[in-house]
Amino acid sequence: MEQDNLIALLIETTVLKRLPRTGWLLRGVPDAESIADHSFGTAFVVLALADVLNASGTLPAPLDAGKALAIAVLHDLPEARLTDLPGPTKHLIPREVKSQAELKALEALTAALPSARRFQALWREFEDESTPEGKLVRDADKVEMMIQCLRYELSGSRGLDDFWASMDRQDWHYPLCADLYTQLKGMRPGNG
Amino acid sequence: MEQDNLIALLIETTVLKRLPRTGWLLRGVPDAESIADHSFGTAFVVLALADVLNASGTLPAPLDAGKALAIAVLHDLPEARLTDLPGPTKHLIPREVKSQAELKALEALTAALPSARRFQALWREFEDESTPEGKLVRDADKVEMMIQCLRYELSGSRGLDDFWASMDRQDWHYPLCADLYTQLKGMRPGNG
Amino acid sequence: MEQDNLIALLIETTVLKRLPRTGWLLRGVPDAESIADHSFGTAFVVLALADVLNASGTLPAPLDAGKALAIAVLHDLPEARLTDLPGPTKHLIPREVKSQAELKALEALTAALPSARRFQALWREFEDESTPEGKLVRDADKVEMMIQCLRYELSGSRGLDDFWASMDRQDWHYPLCADLYTQLKGMRPGNG
Amino acid sequence: MEQDNLIALLIETTVLKRLPRTGWLLRGVPDAESIADHSFGTAFVVLALADVLNASGTLPAPLDAGKALAIAVLHDLPEARLTDLPGPTKHLIPREVKSQAELKALEALTAALPSARRFQALWREFEDESTPEGKLVRDADKVEMMIQCLRYELSGSRGLDDFWASMDRQDWHYPLCADLYTQLKGMRPGNG
Amino acid sequence: MEQDNLIALLIETTVLKRLPRTGWLLRGVPDAESIADHSFGTAFVVLALADVLNASGTLPAPLDAGKALAIAVLHDLPEARLTDLPGPTKHLIPREVKSQAELKALEALTAALPSARRFQALWREFEDESTPEGKLVRDADKVEMMIQCLRYELSGSRGLDDFWASMDRQDWHYPLCADLYTQLKGMRPGNG
Amino acid sequence: MEQDNLIALLIETTVLKRLPRTGWLLRGVPDAESIADHSFGTAFVVLALADVLNASGTLPAPLDAGKALAIAVLHDLPEARLTDLPGPTKHLIPREVKSQAELKALEALTAALPSARRFQALWREFEDESTPEGKLVRDADKVEMMIQCLRYELSGSRGLDDFWASMDRQDWHYPLCADLYTQLKGMRPGNG
Repeated sequence: MEQDNLIALLIETTVLKRLPRTGWLLRGVPDAESIADHSFGTAFVVLALADVLNASGTLPAPLDAGKALAIAVLHDLPEARLTDLPGPTKHLIPREVKSQAELKALEALTAALPSARRFQALWREFEDESTPEGKLVRDADKVEMMIQCLRYELSGSRGLDDFWASMDRQDWHYPLCADLYTQLKGMRPGNG
Repeated sequence: MEQDNLIALLIETTVLKRLPRTGWLLRGVPDAESIADHSFGTAFVVLALADVLNASGTLPAPLDAGKALAIAVLHDLPEARLTDLPGPTKHLIPREVKSQAELKALEALTAALPSARRFQALWREFEDESTPEGKLVRDADKVEMMIQCLRYELSGSRGLDDFWASMDRQDWHYPLCADLYTQLKGMRPGNG
Repeated sequence: MEQDNLIALLIETTVLKRLPRTGWLLRGVPDAESIADHSFGTAFVVLALADVLNASGTLPAPLDAGKALAIAVLHDLPEARLTDLPGPTKHLIPREVKSQAELKALEALTAALPSARRFQALWREFEDESTPEGKLVRDADKVEMMIQCLRYELSGSRGLDDFWASMDRQDWHYPLCADLYTQLKGMRPGNG
Repeated sequence: MEQDNLIALLIETTVLKRLPRTGWLLRGVPDAESIADHSFGTAFVVLALADVLNASGTLPAPLDAGKALAIAVLHDLPEARLTDLPGPTKHLIPREVKSQAELKALEALTAALPSARRFQALWREFEDESTPEGKLVRDADKVEMMIQCLRYELSGSRGLDDFWASMDRQDWHYPLCADLYTQLKGMRPGNG
Repeated sequence: MEQDNLIALLIETTVLKRLPRTGWLLRGVPDAESIADHSFGTAFVVLALADVLNASGTLPAPLDAGKALAIAVLHDLPEARLTDLPGPTKHLIPREVKSQAELKALEALTAALPSARRFQALWREFEDESTPEGKLVRDADKVEMMIQCLRYELSGSRGLDDFWASMDRQDWHYPLCADLYTQLKGMRPGNG
Repeated sequence: MEQDNLIALLIETTVLKRLPRTGWLLRGVPDAESIADHSFGTAFVVLALADVLNASGTLPAPLDAGKALAIAVLHDLPEARLTDLPGPTKHLIPREVKSQAELKALEALTAALPSARRFQALWREFEDESTPEGKLVRDADKVEMMIQCLRYELSGSRGLDDFWASMDRQDWHYPLCADLYTQLKGMRPGNG
C-alpha cells in the first residue's frame, strides 16, 4: 500500500520530463527544454557551486551540499501538478495563492515518503530563501536559466532580451553567482 | 498608437500556436496539439453543429452562428497569458481565482479593440454557460476534445481512459452533442 | 447515417492540426505551425479587424463579422485532403486545376452538412475575393502569415526575405491591412 | 555560373530532409519520417534486393544495380518542389497533371547537371515501370513503405490498416518483393 | 580563468538536455527523453529511495543521501562528450575501453572544480558498484529506466519487451528495488 | 531463413531514420537531421558530382557512379548499431577501436546478403579513402555536411563556426569539392 503510493509518486514525477518550460515557449524557442531538464541543470549547478564556494574560504560556515542537492531536486516538483506558470501570471494569480498551491501539490505528491515533512521544509527554505542552502538553490535556479538562455542565443535564438533585463535587477545571494551572471552576459552574441 | 496595441495583440496571440494542451502532455501523448489547434477545432465544430442544429427544427429559436464562432475564437484567448492549466489544478487554485485571472487576461489582451467590452461579455457567456451560443461553445469545446482524444487513440495512444470517464458525467446542453459523444465512444479501439 | 458523415467530417478535420504549413518547412523553420494554427490565427485576425473596420466609420456598409468568421474557418478546409501546396507549385500545377481540386475536396468534406452549398459559396467568396467578407479573409490570411513570419524572425529565424518581397507586391483590399503590413515590416529585426 | 546552379540544386535538395511523408501525418503517426528518410530507405532496399536477385539465378539478365540506385535516389526528387501529395489527391488532381508537374520539377531541378536528360529518362523508367531497374525501384518503394509501416506498428502506432489493404492489391514485379510483403504482414502485432 | 572553465563546464553540461536516450530511439519511441531528463529522474528516485530505506530500519548503516544525490547527478555526465551509447555497442566496443573513455571525459569535464578528484571517485563508486551509495544509484538508474519504460507503454508505446527481459536478469542490490521492479512489471498494459 | 535475416536487416536499417546526427545536437540545432537524411544527401551529392566530374574530362578514368552510390548508401550503415559518435569522441575512443567496431557492425548487419564481403570491401574503400569512388564519397560526405551546415545558418542557426574551421583544414580529394566548399563558405550569412 505504501509502495503503491511510492510507485505512483515515481511515475507521476516523470511528467516533469514532458512539461516544457513555458518562458521559452512564449518567446518561440523551438524544442524548449523540459522542467526535468532544468531541474537536472539546477542540481548540477548546485553541485558545482557548492564545491567552489566551500573551497573558497569565504563562507562563514560550509554549505551542506547534500541538503542543497535535495532542495534542487525538489524545487520544481510541485510543477508536476501545476505545470510551469510563466512570469506574466504573476499579475493574474496572487503570489500567495500560487505559493499555497505549490505547497499543497508538494504535500500531496510527497505524502508517501517517510520524510514528507522534512522535504516540505526543505522546499520552503528555497521558497522563502531562508537558509544558506535555500539561497544557493535560488541563485542556482537563476544561473541555470541564464546559462540555458545564453545557450539558446549562441544557437541562434533571439527575442530573449527581457530575460537579461529582468536578471539585471536580480538580488543575488552569493557574489559568485552575480559574477557568473556578468560573465554569461558578456558572452552574448552581438545581435543588433 | 491604437494600431501598436492592435499589432501587439495580434503578435501575442500567436503564442497559442506554441502552447501545448497540457492534458495530453500529462498522459504522454507525443506531439500534443497546440491551444490554437484546439481553438480552430472548436470553431469548426461550432460551425458544423450550429448548422445541423439550426436545420433540425428542434430549437426554440435559431442559434446565431456568427456569434457562436466569435465565442469559440475567444474562448481560450486568456491562455495566451495563463497557459493551459490542466485539470488537477482545480484542486490547487480556487475556481474563482482562475476565472478572475482569465477575465483579467482577456481584458488586458483585448483592450485595444473597439468592442473589448462586448468580447468580454461573449467570453462570459461561455464561462457562465448563460446563453444558447455560450452553451453551444461549451459543448463544442468538449466534443472537440473527445474527437481529438479518439483520434489519438485511433493512432495508438493509450492511457486516456479518464478523459472518457470524466465525460461520462458531463451535462450536455444539446442532445446532439450527447449523441455525438456516445458515437465517438463507440468508435474507441478495443484496448484491453 | 447522417451523423456518421458528420463524425467522419469532424474527425478528418483534425488532420489540419498535424499538417504543417509547407512554406515554413521549405525555409527550414523548426516546429513549423500547423494549418489549423494558421486557420485559428486567421479567424482571430478577422475577428479583430472586422471590429476595427466596423468601428472606423470608413466602410460603405458594415462587414458581417459572423460570415467573415465562417469564411476564415472554412478557407483552408480543402487542405485536409490536398495538404498545403507551397508557392512554387503554382508553376507546376495550373491554378484552375488546383482551384477545382480544392472545390471538389470542399464538396466531399462538407457533404454531410445541411448548408453544404452555402459553405461552398462562402469559400468561393474567399477564393474569388468577390465580397467584402471574402476580401477581408483574403487580407487577413496574408496579414496573419506575415505576423507569423515576423514572429519567427523575432525568435531567430532567417531566410524569410522572399515572404516580405512577395508581400511588397500584394494588392490589399483594405488600407488598414496595408498599414498593418507596413508596421510589421518596420518591426523586423535588423539582420545583416 | 554552372557551379552556382549546381550549388543551388544541392541546397534545394536538402528540403527533402524536412518535408514529411504525408501518408503518416494523415494517420497521426508522431515524428513522421522525411522524404529523404524514405529515399534513403528505398536506396538501401534496392541495394539489398538487387544483390539477392542477381545472386538468385532467376533473372533473365542481371540487374544493373548502379542504375537502380540512381533511380532510387532520383525517384522522389520532384517532391522537393511539389511536396509529398498524399494518396487521396489522386481523386482531386488528375494523374497526368501530377506526372507532368513532377517531370517539370525534375527538369528544373536537374538543369545544371550534364546528364540532365539521362536522369529524366531514368526517372521515367520508374514512373512508367518500363525497365527491370525501374520496376525494381517501384517494388522497393512499396516494400520500404511497408517496412516502415510495420516498424511504426511495432512501436505502437495504430490506424494503418488501409496501407496493408491497399498493398494487398499491389501487382508486384518481382516475386521476391511479394514474398517479403507477405512476411512483413505476418509480423504485424495482433491489434484487435 | 578558473571561472572561465567553470562557465565552460556549466554551458557544456546543457547538452545533456538535448541528447536523447538512444535505447528509446532504437525502438521508435517518439519524443524520447533526454539524458538530463533521465538524470533528474534518477536523482529523484535516489532521494525517495534513500528516504524509504533509511526509515525502514533494515540497513546496517544509514545511507548518505547527499552523497548518493551527488553520484546520481554525476552518473551520466561523461555522456556530455560520449553521448548515450546504446546497449548493442557492448558487443562492439570493449567495456573497459568505454569505461576508460567515460572516466577521461569526466576528468576533462570536471577539471575546473576544486573537488574534481572526489567527484571522479564518486563516479567510480557508481561504475564499480563499490559502496552502498554507488549501489543505490545503480539500482535507481535501472528503476528509473523501467518507470519510464512503463510510462511509455501506458501511453501506447510497444516493442519494449526486451527492456523487461533484460531486467528480469538484473541483480538488484536492494530488495526494495527488486520489489519495485516486480510491481512495475505487474502494471504493464496487457498487449497481446 | 535467409529471408528472415534479410527482413531483419531491412527493419533494423530504419533506425537510421530516427537516430540524429549528433554534431548538430551538440550545438543546439533544433530538429536535427537523421543519419538517413544525411545518407540520402550524400548519395545525391555523389550522383551529381560523379556526373559533373565524368563530364569534365579532367579525370584519368571515369568514375563508376553506380559503385560510388553503393558506397554512399553503405557509408553510415554501421551507425545503425553504433549511433553517430560525435567528433570529440575521437579523443576518448581510439580511432582503430571505432573503425573495428564499425566493421564488426557492418559484418553483422550485412551477413544475410550474398555480397556481404563485397559490401564490406566497398565500405573499406570509403574508410581508407583508397579508390577514386571511396575518395568521392569521402569528399561528398563532407560537402553534404557543409551544405546542411549552411542551410541551418541560412535559417538562423548560429554557433556552427567550428564546422567551418575544421573544414578549412580538410584535404579534399577532388578540386571540384574544394571549390564547392569555398563557394558554400562565401554564402554564409554575415553573423557578427
